[in-house]
Amino acid sequence: MRPHSHCVSEQDTHHDRSELSVSKWFNSDKDITLAGLRGKVVVIEAFQMLCPICVAHGLPLAQNIQRAFSSEQVVVLGLHTVFEHRDAMKPVSLEAFLHEYRITFPVGADAEGKEAIPKTMEAYQLRGTPSLLLIDKAGTLRTNHFGDVSELRLGAEITTLLGEALEKIT
Amino acid sequence: MRPHSHCVSEQDTHHDRSELSVSKWFNSDKDITLAGLRGKVVVIEAFQMLCPICVAHGLPLAQNIQRAFSSEQVVVLGLHTVFEHRDAMKPVSLEAFLHEYRITFPVGADAEGKEAIPKTMEAYQLRGTPSLLLIDKAGTLRTNHFGDVSELRLGAEITTLLGEALEKIT
Amino acid sequence: MRPHSHCVSEQDTHHDRSELSVSKWFNSDKDITLAGLRGKVVVIEAFQMLCPICVAHGLPLAQNIQRAFSSEQVVVLGLHTVFEHRDAMKPVSLEAFLHEYRITFPVGADAEGKEAIPKTMEAYQLRGTPSLLLIDKAGTLRTNHFGDVSELRLGAEITTLLGEALEKIT
Amino acid sequence: MRPHSHCVSEQDTHHDRSELSVSKWFNSDKDITLAGLRGKVVVIEAFQMLCPICVAHGLPLAQNIQRAFSSEQVVVLGLHTVFEHRDAMKPVSLEAFLHEYRITFPVGADAEGKEAIPKTMEAYQLRGTPSLLLIDKAGTLRTNHFGDVSELRLGAEITTLLGEALEKIT
Repeated sequence: MRPHSHCVSEQDTHHDRSELSVSKWFNSDKDITLAGLRGKVVVIEAFQMLCPICVAHGLPLAQNIQRAFSSEQVVVLGLHTVFEHRDAMKPVSLEAFLHEYRITFPVGADAEGKEAIPKTMEAYQLRGTPSLLLIDKAGTLRTNHFGDVSELRLGAEITTLLGEALEKIT
Repeated sequence: MRPHSHCVSEQDTHHDRSELSVSKWFNSDKDITLAGLRGKVVVIEAFQMLCPICVAHGLPLAQNIQRAFSSEQVVVLGLHTVFEHRDAMKPVSLEAFLHEYRITFPVGADAEGKEAIPKTMEAYQLRGTPSLLLIDKAGTLRTNHFGDVSELRLGAEITTLLGEALEKIT
Repeated sequence: MRPHSHCVSEQDTHHDRSELSVSKWFNSDKDITLAGLRGKVVVIEAFQMLCPICVAHGLPLAQNIQRAFSSEQVVVLGLHTVFEHRDAMKPVSLEAFLHEYRITFPVGADAEGKEAIPKTMEAYQLRGTPSLLLIDKAGTLRTNHFGDVSELRLGAEITTLLGEALEKIT
Repeated sequence: MRPHSHCVSEQDTHHDRSELSVSKWFNSDKDITLAGLRGKVVVIEAFQMLCPICVAHGLPLAQNIQRAFSSEQVVVLGLHTVFEHRDAMKPVSLEAFLHEYRITFPVGADAEGKEAIPKTMEAYQLRGTPSLLLIDKAGTLRTNHFGDVSELRLGAEITTLLGEALEKIT
């Protein structure tokens, strides 16, 4: 089972400070913005509920991050970014999925774009799912892992971002 | 992640020759009946597409059975038997799920019953999902495994059923 | 980590009724012979204690077989058949290994041959370790699995041997 | 399979700047000292070659650390610290073990102490095997993980130590 990809013409490293474009939040009673999380490191797991590698590896990894770091310092979010089988993964299905898989962090449904690619996926130039995004304390996308990630490397990268002084990266 | 259960008052061992009640077949262009499979051992994986243990263990086990035995002798079927979150697992979602998880054996959607429990699940007194059912050459339900199953035991049970002469069990 | 192999000129399927040549038994206070196990199916796990695949897969599989079948019908034995690093795997080391890995079935140390290859390994034309051997009720080697084995297939094969009448195969 | 433990009266967190007491190094043609590694973070995997959890989890984790970090910054060492079955795990056996398991980082045999407990194990107050030790750039033992460790947390801890200025911790 390989990760799901869609073509992206841009290069891999892409530093961006775009906001999330989310049509609906789950596991949260209010809208979440990167601006509102300023000062914290944000980890975003971009997934599709019917993507086998997302289910077997991506989401459990995000749950491990949620457990390994204090929520005061590191905020884990899900981004349900559907670019295929859109009718199969509507909000009613996603909600049951999150319940059954015991996902407790907030998950935003990526807003539909003009074409098949949802808005946040487009803005962040994601290559497919699962993608794991690291956002620094100032809200800038710093790392975009597509597919497999080493937990050791990830622990190192998050810690490096945690060590940055907010005033120096703003 | 525990298997999903619903209460059943009957006892565990339940020998039945009920037909399948299926509202729609996937991965098959014609309806499938146990009567039509007379003479073959039939393995039925009863699952829900949003049941984590079904996805992580039940369906891969069924795929292993499909690979380990000749389809001339052993027929593997899926039964999508939804007793919770019904709106989340409609045919359009199931179809995408089967495609993404590369399930190639026929899967029947268990027909809705009068109450929450679908018809085949009711008739076979299934306790929940995943359930793995072994049907002998004469169409009788012989074994009903709920939850974890040893592949060694399963290989042994299927082989025992294969060794039965059809005329002796009819 | 690949299985350890040594060259064998003979062909794969090799039906043999050789006895075991064992210099010392562990987990048994008396010598064990295939003749003495006549009427039972015997499963032999041929391994080396420093072979990674034997440790990670071969021996746990043998332990699963020990649990899945009645010892009245199926007897599991280990054969420590060392064809490399002989000084590293002497009886004192093997004994500690069996204790630490909680191997409770009898294990025989394959007797040294004239060359590097131990006697039973030579007689059975084993290709390396791990090898899983199935011996029928009459003491004949019927199947020799080198490397990976499907538990479903193995459960089927053992059950087929259990179904044979001793008087017909003698 | 639980980790192997021996009783230690001291408390868990134990900051020490003891040198390693090693009777023989493997995978290294010269003796290794913490003093000689000053300026680098040192990760020590304390193990016994016949300890199942060390083999299944501890050593693969150390290999992952070796791959995840630059050897210019993080040095991985093994410490073979035998406090039971001493005759079963002599140098000739350890050498074959390291070869078969493809351990390429230097491994030191912990020097025998007056009692059953080897010298480095005693000095560092290790509770058993596997233990994973993190030594800072100044040679001080900073963290001692006994049993399971999260790779995310470990990546974070190593990165925190890498971020320390040597002159501040000396």
